[in-house]
Amino acid sequence: MPRCKRYAAAVHPKLRDVAEHAGVSVRTVSNVVNGFRYVAPATRERVQASIDALGYRPNLAARTLRQGRTGLVALVVPEIDSPYFAELAARTVRIAGARGLTVLIDQTDGDAEREKELLHGRRGQLVDGVLFSPWAVAPAELAARTDPVPLVLLGEHDGTAGVDHVAIDNVAAAREATAHLLGSGRRRVAALGIQPRSLNATARQRLAGYRQALAEAGLPAEPELAVPVRRLHRADGHQAMLRLLDLAQPPDAVFCFTDELALGALRAAADRRVPVPEALAVVGFDDIEDGRYSVPALTTVSPDKDRIAELALDRLTAAPGPPRSIVAPHHLEVRETS
Amino acid sequence: MPRCKRYAAAVHPKLRDVAEHAGVSVRTVSNVVNGFRYVAPATRERVQASIDALGYRPNLAARTLRQGRTGLVALVVPEIDSPYFAELAARTVRIAGARGLTVLIDQTDGDAEREKELLHGRRGQLVDGVLFSPWAVAPAELAARTDPVPLVLLGEHDGTAGVDHVAIDNVAAAREATAHLLGSGRRRVAALGIQPRSLNATARQRLAGYRQALAEAGLPAEPELAVPVRRLHRADGHQAMLRLLDLAQPPDAVFCFTDELALGALRAAADRRVPVPEALAVVGFDDIEDGRYSVPALTTVSPDKDRIAELALDRLTAAPGPPRSIVAPHHLEVRETS
Repeated sequence: MPRCKRYAAAVHPKLRDVAEHAGVSVRTVSNVVNGFRYVAPATRERVQASIDALGYRPNLAARTLRQGRTGLVALVVPEIDSPYFAELAARTVRIAGARGLTVLIDQTDGDAEREKELLHGRRGQLVDGVLFSPWAVAPAELAARTDPVPLVLLGEHDGTAGVDHVAIDNVAAAREATAHLLGSGRRRVAALGIQPRSLNATARQRLAGYRQALAEAGLPAEPELAVPVRRLHRADGHQAMLRLLDLAQPPDAVFCFTDELALGALRAAADRRVPVPEALAVVGFDDIEDGRYSVPALTTVSPDKDRIAELALDRLTAAPGPPRSIVAPHHLEVRETS
Repeated sequence: MPRCKRYAAAVHPKLRDVAEHAGVSVRTVSNVVNGFRYVAPATRERVQASIDALGYRPNLAARTLRQGRTGLVALVVPEIDSPYFAELAARTVRIAGARGLTVLIDQTDGDAEREKELLHGRRGQLVDGVLFSPWAVAPAELAARTDPVPLVLLGEHDGTAGVDHVAIDNVAAAREATAHLLGSGRRRVAALGIQPRSLNATARQRLAGYRQALAEAGLPAEPELAVPVRRLHRADGHQAMLRLLDLAQPPDAVFCFTDELALGALRAAADRRVPVPEALAVVGFDDIEDGRYSVPALTTVSPDKDRIAELALDRLTAAPGPPRSIVAPHHLEVRETS
């Protein structure tokens, strides 16, 4: 068995050593290592035997990152219990796994100090790259970053920071969502999710799209229909919707800046016995699993989360170059609330 | 300023150095470092000034783990996009943060091979401890573990593995949930969530509790009312509930082994225009945020997730000793579906 002997001597066997030993592709080894189910049992067994024979350690697998050392990528999100981020994280882990990369998830609670720490290398000693979904950190902080570990921002920001980022076109998506409501004859469309003092661009961009759609329909942007919230959770949507329903002239539709807000708004409509969509149409944003099973099922802007993860990982492993803004696809998923 | 001078000389300032420098408790420093909001602005500012003055680096903070080196703890869960695990993870990150520990979240997709890798030290070089929520791995694998990194299992298992674990009393919780349905006069109570060939003890224990409650009420366990599912998600609950509603004698209540299953079951009831709770009472398990805002709001077994995280972290940082099974509290949260 000269083959086995040769490989047994290697101190740090690589993915391709295992592939050659087992007589399969690197991708197949990666699939086995990462536990994907679509590998035939016999192949899996052969690959596992080679892994054992060579003493291969999977978390040293990835050599493809710009400065690849550990095969680890950090995914930094504000709140892992926010379903949008949980779904994005789950998909990122799976897609990275198929590329031989391991993703470790970090939660910042949207706190500027924690975000700053992570931006400026708190994980530098551990990871080969950082996927970062900023919440509270100022654009100037991003621009001031000197950490050499590659960074890709996920989600919208103001584009001034000079770093790579991947996001859907939030302004266009918000305009489509609002136009959809106006197109079905609604005339008092509220916008729920404004965050007046936030550094985060999300709410600003979604508000801009909402206003564009109103302007295109020749309708004024009525201040009382643009509702600020503290955070973007169900409880905030619930409270804000109750206030909207208490107006002398309540809205006949609401565009919510997240599905969580929209689910809170649906609950408020149920509390007040306002039928949805007859008396109140509701559109959310994020296409979380939750809204597919709600009663009624939620119409929502659906960002292509798989594509966001793929594009971000592509960018993280690409050759260094000038910062790019990459736009991921989205579509409006019309269900029962509109 | 002799104080500042003394501390500025320290190479690796600790949490308590910052605390002494700022004239506050270690806990307050930890709260600031981890971005908790309940620190007064003036205090936060003073602590931040001390952190800057001493050049303190937060991720080297924790020295309390049995073999503490990195201050990092891995939390391994099957699916981070499953709300129960997302909520447990978010709380674990926050609670660990207040103790000066950083939690990195790993997702296994419930795959036995990935779980095995993580059990046997795939993260060993990185972390001081592992909180592990196993799904597919066999008890024998747990018993065979030789990795010296401390491990605490989260969630039920069969208790044969000789490792520390923290879980609620699943049998008692399932019995209470079923007894609650029987106590309101229901007589055909279905159990939704059986996983016949799973190595995971969750479904087995919840089924046992369901059967105990039936037996205590003098009712037979009817096989057609105990419904198997492939996974524990909304889609599985939706399909299984549709089948139950198609029975010649459909159930008048259903105990679902997860809230996700229950939310799918609620959607199925809405599809068939079966009024909840009038014609069908529904109880879930997990108390995810989702069920608090569903229409109608979901009655559920509420595990104390904060306490689970606290107890698991306590155990991880305790002195070595014989394996312990620690029971976390739970209660039945009665809402609108029962």
